[in-house]
Amino acid sequence: MISLADIRSAANEVLPITHRTPVLTCAGIERRVPGGGVPLVFKAENLQRTGSFKIRGAYYRLSQLSAAERKRGVAAASAGNHAQGVALAAKLLGITATIYMPEFASIAKIKATEGYGAKVVLAGANFDEAVAACAAFVEQSGAVYVPPYDDDAIIAGQGTLGLELLEDIQDLESVVAPIGGGGLFAGLAVALKESRPEVRLIGVQAETADNAVRSFQAGKLLENTRAPETICDGIAVKSPSPRTFEYIRKYADDVVPVTDMAVADALLLLLERAKLVVEPSGAAGLAAVLSGAAKPRGKTAIVLTGGNIDSLRLADLTQREMLRADRYLKLYTACGDFPGSLARLLAIIAAERGNVANVGHDRLSSHVALGHTRVEFLIEVRDKAHGEKIIAAIAAAGYPINVSD
Amino acid sequence: MISLADIRSAANEVLPITHRTPVLTCAGIERRVPGGGVPLVFKAENLQRTGSFKIRGAYYRLSQLSAAERKRGVAAASAGNHAQGVALAAKLLGITATIYMPEFASIAKIKATEGYGAKVVLAGANFDEAVAACAAFVEQSGAVYVPPYDDDAIIAGQGTLGLELLEDIQDLESVVAPIGGGGLFAGLAVALKESRPEVRLIGVQAETADNAVRSFQAGKLLENTRAPETICDGIAVKSPSPRTFEYIRKYADDVVPVTDMAVADALLLLLERAKLVVEPSGAAGLAAVLSGAAKPRGKTAIVLTGGNIDSLRLADLTQREMLRADRYLKLYTACGDFPGSLARLLAIIAAERGNVANVGHDRLSSHVALGHTRVEFLIEVRDKAHGEKIIAAIAAAGYPINVSD
Repeated sequence: MISLADIRSAANEVLPITHRTPVLTCAGIERRVPGGGVPLVFKAENLQRTGSFKIRGAYYRLSQLSAAERKRGVAAASAGNHAQGVALAAKLLGITATIYMPEFASIAKIKATEGYGAKVVLAGANFDEAVAACAAFVEQSGAVYVPPYDDDAIIAGQGTLGLELLEDIQDLESVVAPIGGGGLFAGLAVALKESRPEVRLIGVQAETADNAVRSFQAGKLLENTRAPETICDGIAVKSPSPRTFEYIRKYADDVVPVTDMAVADALLLLLERAKLVVEPSGAAGLAAVLSGAAKPRGKTAIVLTGGNIDSLRLADLTQREMLRADRYLKLYTACGDFPGSLARLLAIIAAERGNVANVGHDRLSSHVALGHTRVEFLIEVRDKAHGEKIIAAIAAAGYPINVSD
Repeated sequence: MISLADIRSAANEVLPITHRTPVLTCAGIERRVPGGGVPLVFKAENLQRTGSFKIRGAYYRLSQLSAAERKRGVAAASAGNHAQGVALAAKLLGITATIYMPEFASIAKIKATEGYGAKVVLAGANFDEAVAACAAFVEQSGAVYVPPYDDDAIIAGQGTLGLELLEDIQDLESVVAPIGGGGLFAGLAVALKESRPEVRLIGVQAETADNAVRSFQAGKLLENTRAPETICDGIAVKSPSPRTFEYIRKYADDVVPVTDMAVADALLLLLERAKLVVEPSGAAGLAAVLSGAAKPRGKTAIVLTGGNIDSLRLADLTQREMLRADRYLKLYTACGDFPGSLARLLAIIAAERGNVANVGHDRLSSHVALGHTRVEFLIEVRDKAHGEKIIAAIAAAGYPINVSD
């Protein structure tokens, strides 16, 4: 296992090229912690170069290559943040990088990786196939493979984030961070626990990819029981490696699961209240605290690990979340199929200050009488009570409610 | 006019209750400055308490009230950030606050203002009517009116941001900030120019609400020629006050206009690359620099004044911007109206790696032959070239392109 001294060595290489990401507070979010009394500090690693902490480990790993290895170039397989971390690290060190991404990789991430000067190869219908293609390339080309987490230098590099937490947050008592492959968690653990063993360290995973949760509980490495389906793509891996699990077993105070819904809630809160763009995996720590799954004590740092979420996906997630949080009202009714009929309905909604976002109009619906039209509204409302007031006003005017599809 | 000493006095009151917002850099954005060679630093005032700089001036103004005035309570009129600034300042000082907002005020801003404990009164179809209603309330209740910018204490409070810029950014050579009523700009001007006169200070306005641009050029106060229509609602005012204009005339090195489109570009760049949620007015400074309207020299601070944009509006803006930036392709074609016909079209798009976001299907279109259906696709693409490749593939398969609506 690596030592605190290893992380300090990594810091000497890494910190000169990374951002010192800010630690931020947000009263509007802190107020929502169940039970209260837990001051939250966000380590905004979404503001890191490449949009995630991954540059720390990748840069340190590459900085340790010999001149001969650098000449051979590096290769990595990743659908996400590791790709960008390796690409930028390689660029800064003047090394050629080839990144294998699965064919489904998002256009934004492909472009960002290419933007750092790496060559991107799309290969394989899933991540394992991209890894296999990368391995074949390494075999044939002699390039140096850069693993995403199962590597001492990678772990030491990610651990530099822990040093910053200790320096920048006074009276730090708990740290909550997501676990994917476990590289960040392992580095954090050494930085924190070897400096101040009393700091509580809690890991978080998506409940559908909870291998580390179960491994921690069982005291031995377990894989996922099924292919993970979660919005937390950044931490949905088959399992930590035997190497990273050693750190989890030794240092974690707890490892807890979160639902995708709790993650989406946390993500939107960070967007609306903290004004930060955070990707789903990066919001998992906050989700764990707000859902009560994680039980931190005292001043608590939550690591917002990254912010690389596709804008369109963010827009989509925002809209779905608004519906779920009763800030959109979906309303189905019917009105007479004659001029001015729809206008009258809209006037009722306007009088109640509902903001219509979308109108659907189906004259062929089999659920309304001939001469009537089924109407579907998407209305922006203040809250559930506001929505119910609008429904009541429409019902009071004689319109049917909940005309089914 | 206020002095640097006034701003230092304000700092003693204000800085203990505000966040020291971070100064951030982003290589991906800096690279886009026309001509290059201008290091950019973002003052992330969107991360300030209440989501904008307005808490600075509001808190200082309220902290200067006598005990008797505090008892009478305060009132303000605002559709936006000033409302939240006054509401939080009042809460922190134990003062009752009544905020008048126009009826169109966004649900999110009403809720946020109420969340700080203020009483919100919706009054008037536009901002002037809300101000009139507030004035009537002040007259009748004896509450102390808190103006948004035309006030020495407000100006001194906003000026504390300038002190932070000077302390936190080494070798600062230029500052770019939006101008609405001119309160922030006036305070910034005194803080910067009375400390280091060689720092260039550039103001920015929306081109449809360019009163300060024209006033600066004319050397006398001019109002907008028409009602401003711009996404930059936070800086769309009739004109600076005679008081704030004095500072603009004396200290500004330039005042420049930006288009809404440049602002939308800047806002999305900050969201995607800097991972920051910034409202349109808050992105105006970056828009001015990237569009070439503002010509800063050397290390340049851009003040991101606030982040209070409604999530739904942000989602909407993101999607429109994607279309404009050739990352969405809108494609109109026609296919035979028989089973499997649409599937074949989709297969062609999939083979070219286009990601279909929306499909419209109109069998009644008058623009296609009987037995055919007009089809409208919204497709996520990498860039313009990718979109053209998809169009070419569909055309090569014999489908018509650009079937009009």
